[in-house]
Amino acid sequence: MVSSKRVLFTKIPSGYPVAGEHMKLDEKTVDLEAALPKGDFIVKTLEISVDPYMRGRMRDASIQSYAPAFALNEPMTGDTMSVVVKSNNPDYKVGDLVYGRTGRGLFEEYAQVSAEYAKGAYVVRNDAKENGLPLSHYVGVLAMPGMTAYYGLNEIGKPKKGETLYVSAAAGAVGQLVGQFGKAMGLFVVGSAGSDEKVEYLKEIGFDEAFNYKHGDIEANLRKYCPDGIDIYFEGVGGKMLDAVLAVANNFARIIACGMISQYNLEKPEPLYNIINVVTKRIKFDGFIIMDHMDYEEKFLKEVTPLLTSGAVKYRTDVAEGIEKTPEALINVLQGRNFGKQVVHVADL
Amino acid sequence: MVSSKRVLFTKIPSGYPVAGEHMKLDEKTVDLEAALPKGDFIVKTLEISVDPYMRGRMRDASIQSYAPAFALNEPMTGDTMSVVVKSNNPDYKVGDLVYGRTGRGLFEEYAQVSAEYAKGAYVVRNDAKENGLPLSHYVGVLAMPGMTAYYGLNEIGKPKKGETLYVSAAAGAVGQLVGQFGKAMGLFVVGSAGSDEKVEYLKEIGFDEAFNYKHGDIEANLRKYCPDGIDIYFEGVGGKMLDAVLAVANNFARIIACGMISQYNLEKPEPLYNIINVVTKRIKFDGFIIMDHMDYEEKFLKEVTPLLTSGAVKYRTDVAEGIEKTPEALINVLQGRNFGKQVVHVADL
Repeated sequence: MVSSKRVLFTKIPSGYPVAGEHMKLDEKTVDLEAALPKGDFIVKTLEISVDPYMRGRMRDASIQSYAPAFALNEPMTGDTMSVVVKSNNPDYKVGDLVYGRTGRGLFEEYAQVSAEYAKGAYVVRNDAKENGLPLSHYVGVLAMPGMTAYYGLNEIGKPKKGETLYVSAAAGAVGQLVGQFGKAMGLFVVGSAGSDEKVEYLKEIGFDEAFNYKHGDIEANLRKYCPDGIDIYFEGVGGKMLDAVLAVANNFARIIACGMISQYNLEKPEPLYNIINVVTKRIKFDGFIIMDHMDYEEKFLKEVTPLLTSGAVKYRTDVAEGIEKTPEALINVLQGRNFGKQVVHVADL
Repeated sequence: MVSSKRVLFTKIPSGYPVAGEHMKLDEKTVDLEAALPKGDFIVKTLEISVDPYMRGRMRDASIQSYAPAFALNEPMTGDTMSVVVKSNNPDYKVGDLVYGRTGRGLFEEYAQVSAEYAKGAYVVRNDAKENGLPLSHYVGVLAMPGMTAYYGLNEIGKPKKGETLYVSAAAGAVGQLVGQFGKAMGLFVVGSAGSDEKVEYLKEIGFDEAFNYKHGDIEANLRKYCPDGIDIYFEGVGGKMLDAVLAVANNFARIIACGMISQYNLEKPEPLYNIINVVTKRIKFDGFIIMDHMDYEEKFLKEVTPLLTSGAVKYRTDVAEGIEKTPEALINVLQGRNFGKQVVHVADL
């Protein structure tokens, strides 16, 4: 018998979620000796990913959206890395490293997974044993955030050498990669973040310009740091940031929109005033969710893994220690207090 | 000597332009006997097109936009059909019908055009003599509005049979065509317009559903008349209409944006609240201006002219008589009082 803490979703928030109110920990025991039904296996969770989109799952289940609502008083789910500790399923052997993907990895220290639930959600990633990369990379740069950056910039941004790429939330899970991928493509890359320390980091990893969006007028800063305007905007923020970009964008700009974190915890969205620029500047403003493009994963992993093992691309993580820190870690992300990709380290391999 | 009235742009408006204040007529004389410089020719204007985008040209010339600002106290320009009455240019023979396109046709009863000015702007259209179509079609369905409808729906909308297409300003120059083209592609087509009479017309020309947007809540009407949601929205209106469409749109919807007429005469744009749906519903929201795609004209004319000569596609025009009616005709369009494509009939052939 082992003790297993779980992160439960306990109440629908209207503004920012509060740890202990909207998310709570509980503890159960898992019998590692008992026989498993055919197809089942038990994983020990090693890393948990907390991501902005999870706020959208904290809703009434009757409201449709791209990611399913969390069930009340059930364990939350998201991307995880774990190791199989017991198995009655030939596809998941004891010792296999397993990536819980498409937001379906269970936030439990020990999780029993059925063959049916595992389908498309739990994927063996034993390459993680060999290539020397931190396991947390497998829920970050090599998972949904990395693929969001790579797919969005390439397939929606369609960058041309010499263009200006602007990235908001640039020190976050996705933004830091967008900027580095952009530099590798020959773009002039400008980023913004919410602290001077983050701005420093952006310059260290190769951004041409970076600024703290909390200091000064956003539009004025964009005009200053993007002297040739903005050709590509990687949008994860929304609200005033988006409005400023619409004002500064060049003709034929592309807005790659994978999120609008500034709006997730508002009772009513902020108004947008500059949308007419989509017409006058012939902007392509395209939303996407990487889970619609999982067939891109193979190409993505093949092309991006070597960039990490060679050190060409850096990836900063912000690590919370222990599964009980999961609610606070998610709230940190929603409030922009994380510095780099936020993960929760649950256990060592 | 002939007398030639001209429509001058005389003052930059802040709200709706006023005839006699922001646009004025004047009259000059043109000597049809005098020798012309090499390359020059004189056209007698037959039809003038007034279109919503012209409001955007009534601005301070220091502000950049896709169509050049009108010069103060100079003749306004737009799309025209005219006939050559005198020529010292072998490419434009007396009797040739000439289409003044890309918004550069001169709003003068008799206009003298240089070879340089004519380049790309004045195009011989002698097929108009033979096919029995009204000359006004050559500044409407067979010109910028028609091409906007055809290009936008095909190339940006990428319609799939059975999808729902919603068209606002559906009885206007572009909308009535979008709906008919959509029906021919096997779409379920819903339109809105600003009078019950227009709504009747939409049903007559084959729209599956149509409603008066001035009656009742727009979003509620969209939900009622588009029971399967909206897959494609042809956007020429903006403001509250756009916000309602964003709320009702299906996942993976396309918004084809060629204008936002509701916003053109406001001092400050209306706020938009539902933009986050671009992400959550993975919407492609793409602006375009048909003048960027003039290479599409040949294909367009080849495919659409037969639809008109056969009667498969109808095109309603709203005709103002006499060049002096041009300012009022344009204001009509901006206020939604036109019923069909607004043209000004200047003279018979």
